[in-house]
Amino acid sequence: MRAARFHGKEDLRVEEVPEPSPGPGQVKLRTAFTGICGSDLHYYFCPESLPFDLDNPHPLTGAQLPQTLGHEFAGTVVEVGEGVNGVRVGDRGAVYPMCVSCGECTPCRRGLPFICRLMGSLGATAPGGGLSEFVTFDASLLHVLPENVDLRMGALVEPMAVGWHAVERSGVEAGGTALVAGAGPIGIGSWFALKARGVDRVLVSEPNPERRAAVAALGATVVDPANEDLAAAVAELTDGEGVDAAVDAAGAGAAVSSAVAGLVPGGRLVVAGFYEQPAEIQPTHLMMAETEIVGAVGYSAEEFDAVITAMGRGQYDTTGWVQEMAFDELHDALHSLRNGVGNKILIRNS
Amino acid sequence: MRAARFHGKEDLRVEEVPEPSPGPGQVKLRTAFTGICGSDLHYYFCPESLPFDLDNPHPLTGAQLPQTLGHEFAGTVVEVGEGVNGVRVGDRGAVYPMCVSCGECTPCRRGLPFICRLMGSLGATAPGGGLSEFVTFDASLLHVLPENVDLRMGALVEPMAVGWHAVERSGVEAGGTALVAGAGPIGIGSWFALKARGVDRVLVSEPNPERRAAVAALGATVVDPANEDLAAAVAELTDGEGVDAAVDAAGAGAAVSSAVAGLVPGGRLVVAGFYEQPAEIQPTHLMMAETEIVGAVGYSAEEFDAVITAMGRGQYDTTGWVQEMAFDELHDALHSLRNGVGNKILIRNS
Repeated sequence: MRAARFHGKEDLRVEEVPEPSPGPGQVKLRTAFTGICGSDLHYYFCPESLPFDLDNPHPLTGAQLPQTLGHEFAGTVVEVGEGVNGVRVGDRGAVYPMCVSCGECTPCRRGLPFICRLMGSLGATAPGGGLSEFVTFDASLLHVLPENVDLRMGALVEPMAVGWHAVERSGVEAGGTALVAGAGPIGIGSWFALKARGVDRVLVSEPNPERRAAVAALGATVVDPANEDLAAAVAELTDGEGVDAAVDAAGAGAAVSSAVAGLVPGGRLVVAGFYEQPAEIQPTHLMMAETEIVGAVGYSAEEFDAVITAMGRGQYDTTGWVQEMAFDELHDALHSLRNGVGNKILIRNS
Repeated sequence: MRAARFHGKEDLRVEEVPEPSPGPGQVKLRTAFTGICGSDLHYYFCPESLPFDLDNPHPLTGAQLPQTLGHEFAGTVVEVGEGVNGVRVGDRGAVYPMCVSCGECTPCRRGLPFICRLMGSLGATAPGGGLSEFVTFDASLLHVLPENVDLRMGALVEPMAVGWHAVERSGVEAGGTALVAGAGPIGIGSWFALKARGVDRVLVSEPNPERRAAVAALGATVVDPANEDLAAAVAELTDGEGVDAAVDAAGAGAAVSSAVAGLVPGGRLVVAGFYEQPAEIQPTHLMMAETEIVGAVGYSAEEFDAVITAMGRGQYDTTGWVQEMAFDELHDALHSLRNGVGNKILIRNS
């Protein structure tokens, strides 16, 4: 079968590899769509910025280069292994990619396996990436989709869950106010998650005109931080108080400082974007206003399910920010996204 | 009476001012000791680094330059105003300096008046600084000391409450682990607060040899971050896991990055130190480990009382880090602290 395997910086090859068979407890999925994530771009263009050791096999999963990429995918079950209950051939599902953690460290003991330093994720730090025709994985990772959620939407559950988790981490409550920096997939996912929890006064900051127009068309209040006064827009939204929470899904240094400046005292900024560079903060201002900066990565299985439920309720809309490309356009997709063209690209796997 | 009034950068004058009389609801205190705080040094040496408007009267308190400094003080009630109940002449007490907030902003509505942007504090943004012979203030601000807590200790309640609040903000639980960066008064106060809540595995990082020796003599495990391997010391303390929480009471950029690096995934750094410079963070690492950086300033009246209670139980010790100086040595005290000589200096007011 065909798979896109990462061999090293700017070296992703479409290769023929053996078709996998499900082991005991596993299912075999025919993938339908696989999303290209910002972290895939980091693998491809600047793996040195990732906090992973790519030179040695992963201590829990044994994953090593070349590694099939792709951790945002959905498909249809074509075979089930021995001892699998509750999943049947023909089931359509989205895949929760975080397949293993050490079980012993402080985060694991606290029920936060997705921040275990040894966490293995399909398509990144564990074998079984979605940029291939078939994938096998533990049946428990398959989250079956409701009938009214198609496989295209199913491939979006993963990035939408990242935004959902970021909003959970922000602590913002229904009726509160928020700023989202960046209208890429995680920013859009944060905006949908905020709406789903009843936070209606949300400002989305995005310098890219296409991305800004797309999220505005979905109904968001937008601001261009490069040419408009972001602080004034926050003040207008919040009667001068500042936002209760901000999600930084931009990955640019200026987003951190302007988001912190836009917070109400005691407010919280959630960093959910990949940064290739350090950012500067003003610790005294952080102290005086008791503002908070917290990281958010991954999501729990419950949050993954919450997104699927919200999708079933019609609370997500792919208009204007999701495009499909063919498998043999994969390199074009990576370069296009790197150049800021396009937003969420789903690769059609067949 | 004599008072030390701040007229502007490096301009603090000991002047004769009228002795105040208590208005309705107020008490008049003969001050015994007043501590010099790091923020007093910032007023004196670099007021431009403070987020206060010193050029205009404070919108709630009307305070303007010249302003009597000193917000860490204790003394004896010599007169009570009309309508005061529960406080009597002869009572000894420590003063909760945060006397007013707007009552309308988001923090005030959430019960966090000490982060109200308009909060007025005696000796800083409200009239009534402790570097004077007598002070009048609302009787509710006086926290009476138990018999076994003397006025010297009473003047330390305020800085110890800052450390107490920082530890509360850290969320660390009994049996957990912590790093304290800096063994100035706030770092020492954080160490006492950690011990008081049952956090025994604490590492105190301090480059100044005198400060390091002082906190070690109190019983702390110490490390010299300039000449020893802080990361290795954290790993040794925590079996390689990282600390649950860190309190940055150092105010130096390297403390933020090394403290964040020392945290367990999901751990929290509390910034409780004044910084004159920005600091650099690695947002991607913050994101990947879901670590948190939060500011802490001030303390609630309940936290102020908790410190007094702990003092009454003998959980604080002034050996080796508190020195007394006479009122006419005030300028020497400021310059000494600015040069890193001494630690907590209490001015004898009479």
